[in-house]
Amino acid sequence: MSEPDAPAYTELIGHLQESALLASCSHLLGWDEQTYLPAQGAEHRAEQMALLAGLVHERTVSPRIGELLSELDRIDLGAETAAAANVREARRSYERATRLPKELVVELSRVTTLSQQAWVEARQAKDFKKFEPWLEKVIALKREEATAVGYGDGVPYDALLDDYEPGMTAEKVQAAFTPLRDDLVSLVQQIAGSSVTPDRSIVTRAYSIDAQRAFGRRAAEAIGFDFSAGRLDEAAHPFCSGIGPGDCRLTTRYDEHFFPQALFGTLHEAGHGLYEQGLNRDAFGTAMGHSASLGIHESQSRMWENFVGRRRAFWEHFLTPFRETFSTALGDVSLDEFYAAINIVEPSFIRVEADEVTYNLHIMLRFELEQLLISGDLSAADVPAAWNQKFEEFFSLSPPDDSVGCMQDVHWSAGLIGYFPTYALGNMYAAQFFNAAQSELGDLHQQFSRGEFAPLKDWLRTNIHQRGHLYQADRLLEVVTSETLSHEPLTDHLTSKFGELYNLG
Amino acid sequence: MSEPDAPAYTELIGHLQESALLASCSHLLGWDEQTYLPAQGAEHRAEQMALLAGLVHERTVSPRIGELLSELDRIDLGAETAAAANVREARRSYERATRLPKELVVELSRVTTLSQQAWVEARQAKDFKKFEPWLEKVIALKREEATAVGYGDGVPYDALLDDYEPGMTAEKVQAAFTPLRDDLVSLVQQIAGSSVTPDRSIVTRAYSIDAQRAFGRRAAEAIGFDFSAGRLDEAAHPFCSGIGPGDCRLTTRYDEHFFPQALFGTLHEAGHGLYEQGLNRDAFGTAMGHSASLGIHESQSRMWENFVGRRRAFWEHFLTPFRETFSTALGDVSLDEFYAAINIVEPSFIRVEADEVTYNLHIMLRFELEQLLISGDLSAADVPAAWNQKFEEFFSLSPPDDSVGCMQDVHWSAGLIGYFPTYALGNMYAAQFFNAAQSELGDLHQQFSRGEFAPLKDWLRTNIHQRGHLYQADRLLEVVTSETLSHEPLTDHLTSKFGELYNLG
Repeated sequence: MSEPDAPAYTELIGHLQESALLASCSHLLGWDEQTYLPAQGAEHRAEQMALLAGLVHERTVSPRIGELLSELDRIDLGAETAAAANVREARRSYERATRLPKELVVELSRVTTLSQQAWVEARQAKDFKKFEPWLEKVIALKREEATAVGYGDGVPYDALLDDYEPGMTAEKVQAAFTPLRDDLVSLVQQIAGSSVTPDRSIVTRAYSIDAQRAFGRRAAEAIGFDFSAGRLDEAAHPFCSGIGPGDCRLTTRYDEHFFPQALFGTLHEAGHGLYEQGLNRDAFGTAMGHSASLGIHESQSRMWENFVGRRRAFWEHFLTPFRETFSTALGDVSLDEFYAAINIVEPSFIRVEADEVTYNLHIMLRFELEQLLISGDLSAADVPAAWNQKFEEFFSLSPPDDSVGCMQDVHWSAGLIGYFPTYALGNMYAAQFFNAAQSELGDLHQQFSRGEFAPLKDWLRTNIHQRGHLYQADRLLEVVTSETLSHEPLTDHLTSKFGELYNLG
Repeated sequence: MSEPDAPAYTELIGHLQESALLASCSHLLGWDEQTYLPAQGAEHRAEQMALLAGLVHERTVSPRIGELLSELDRIDLGAETAAAANVREARRSYERATRLPKELVVELSRVTTLSQQAWVEARQAKDFKKFEPWLEKVIALKREEATAVGYGDGVPYDALLDDYEPGMTAEKVQAAFTPLRDDLVSLVQQIAGSSVTPDRSIVTRAYSIDAQRAFGRRAAEAIGFDFSAGRLDEAAHPFCSGIGPGDCRLTTRYDEHFFPQALFGTLHEAGHGLYEQGLNRDAFGTAMGHSASLGIHESQSRMWENFVGRRRAFWEHFLTPFRETFSTALGDVSLDEFYAAINIVEPSFIRVEADEVTYNLHIMLRFELEQLLISGDLSAADVPAAWNQKFEEFFSLSPPDDSVGCMQDVHWSAGLIGYFPTYALGNMYAAQFFNAAQSELGDLHQQFSRGEFAPLKDWLRTNIHQRGHLYQADRLLEVVTSETLSHEPLTDHLTSKFGELYNLG
């Protein structure tokens, strides 16, 4: 791709790439913190992360960037070109960062590192009180952040949401969630009234963890994750970290008596990993070598987890080797029984173990609570009560303790407020992308049933991954699918799939 | 400990601690590079390491340090006080660093990172030609480093050696090695003429790697390594990395048919780890929170590996559980047979698998070759021939290929020239320290045979670890043992131990 012949552009790109290189060091430290760090090393790690965050922030707000951006204002970079995208995102990031005092950035890094350690301990001890002071500190700092960033005519929450899903607001999210919620509530009610009762015991029998580990790796490899450029490890809260070109790390967690957690979790993280591995390596550090938004990122993970991994076709290919690996658990199970068991729809406590249908309701609950935390209408101390009340309202269930209630996710302890809604946006994007891929690639079901995942992977690489952040999410969606954001493809997918599974009218 | 009431001192310490914090980030990246980094991530890692090295170097040569040191010149910090030691070492490090151009530091970091990757591949392929251009680059850069640092009336090699063992010169090393070499050659000849022939098969039977891993961890724990503040992982070339307070990482490598490699390797690295874990945490980043020299560091690892781990008393305690774990391999083996088998003296190819007696000859060989490389009297291309010729001379053996010859160690690929002699110095220091401990703690043999290692560990902590770099190595030796450096305690230890084992007159 040709680049503008402007020294200011070359200098800007060099600066951005070096900043990204420095930030990638802290990504490795962050990965290590969640996987291999000894307990007593937590405090030192917090100091390391704070130092790096401060150094990255210093570079991000360097007045030289402001000067370069001013110079580039006077140059025509074309419409929807790589250079225009790189400069657009550099400007967005510079403007956001220059509004944040360095002290706040350093304090956020320090507090969220320690807060995550406190969260791990509090969750293990099922003792919210141990986490409460940390949540309070995190929320106070995130409110400071929102005030510093600014939010125009909107609400403070918008300033946080915009960091993960550029251009998105609480109001727009609510507008997309409302019709989806109506559809889901109706679908969940129909399923609850169905006479079909899949055999849940199929997924809760004993599946040796070593064999789960090997099979998860095999599945990730099958869909195209490249282990010569990545890893799969264990972490309390699974994530994918794209550290840099050639180094993308997935994590998962294993439960001997609930194999879907690790297997679909691995496919989920591998979906994120395929996005990272599919980015243009030479563009590392610039918008063109970066994902478009968290919602788009999530569309990739949810597509491989649900639209592929929980599809009948996937198991037409994989059930035979899976049954060979776990013959004691699965000797007597048919494809129909297995497929029904991995797609049971039922209100439950844990978001990351939730089925495709109720999952989005978990997101809506968190979205409502974190808006209240940021507006100041809910205090950290009142989170367990508010969570449990809303949970009862959404799912007609009461969490037995906070470890499976308001402390189940790492996000709040890590300061990731405004992140949750991108999960449900991802589900909507995924449905739209999958329809577009299907219409171009022919019968994906047939391909999956033969173990052929390369056509979909390559299509995603060409249409989404390699485009980096050339477009904002809404424009990317339009370019790839010729549609604007809509909940309907997701509703159609869920209604059709679960209508068949639960024999609904 | 009271600190001088001088703003310059406070500022200097703050600066040093922040630099150490930044350097500790690159230590974590270095550990990861050797343990978990995916192959395709090597290039990005090299860029990360080079960037961090550059940033650390910038801080290390900051003119502000020069100003602070000048101010502190005018303050009486006392004799052998913590403050005096911190300032002395800050000055030594500043003077060394200001002589090195930043470009050289960055290039050394970049080249040695890639060179280590090339070394791994060349070693696996047994193809020195793949490594040769990298070795050539490393040597050229190290010669540049020696020239930049300066070496007074000495030789360029001294400038490199001084980085690992402050105050030591090639001439002094040679003076210590010469009498030791005479003693060892004589001892090896006597052993070769002995009619005692221990059963080597005892150490080469099948020892499952999983069980070796568990036993190695148990042994490291038994001697006092704290796993809540550390880890044990696998690496091609084992090392110990003290990343920071509460985070010290050991590595080892396993061979199903040669258990001593991992077991004594783990005790060796755990010896280093005990030193790191025994340092004063609050003094992190200053001389007082740092080891005294690599030779002193090695004295700790060799003490736990050889003076403890290969001692009869250690196995009076551990043979029973070891035999239970490996009953197929060891069911019929007595303590005497086992003790003899783990102490077989025999010329062999691999330094890290060498016995206590011939080990020092491996060091002397490397010491001679690397002096020639740095003086320019030996080119990288001629290293295999020179190695093999000298090996024949020292051991009457010819390495079958370079992977067990000149490519067996990571050091040269990592730019660690001048490092090897500290291993043999460590053996001499260890013998002297062990005698001192023994005379203060009573019958260590009795204690070990009951599985009591805390008295020795605590004595080392008090006398060596907690003193940090208060003294230079020679002064520390004098304070702790009331002796100066001598090869005699090592000779006495080896002569007595192997005289008994091989029934020598």
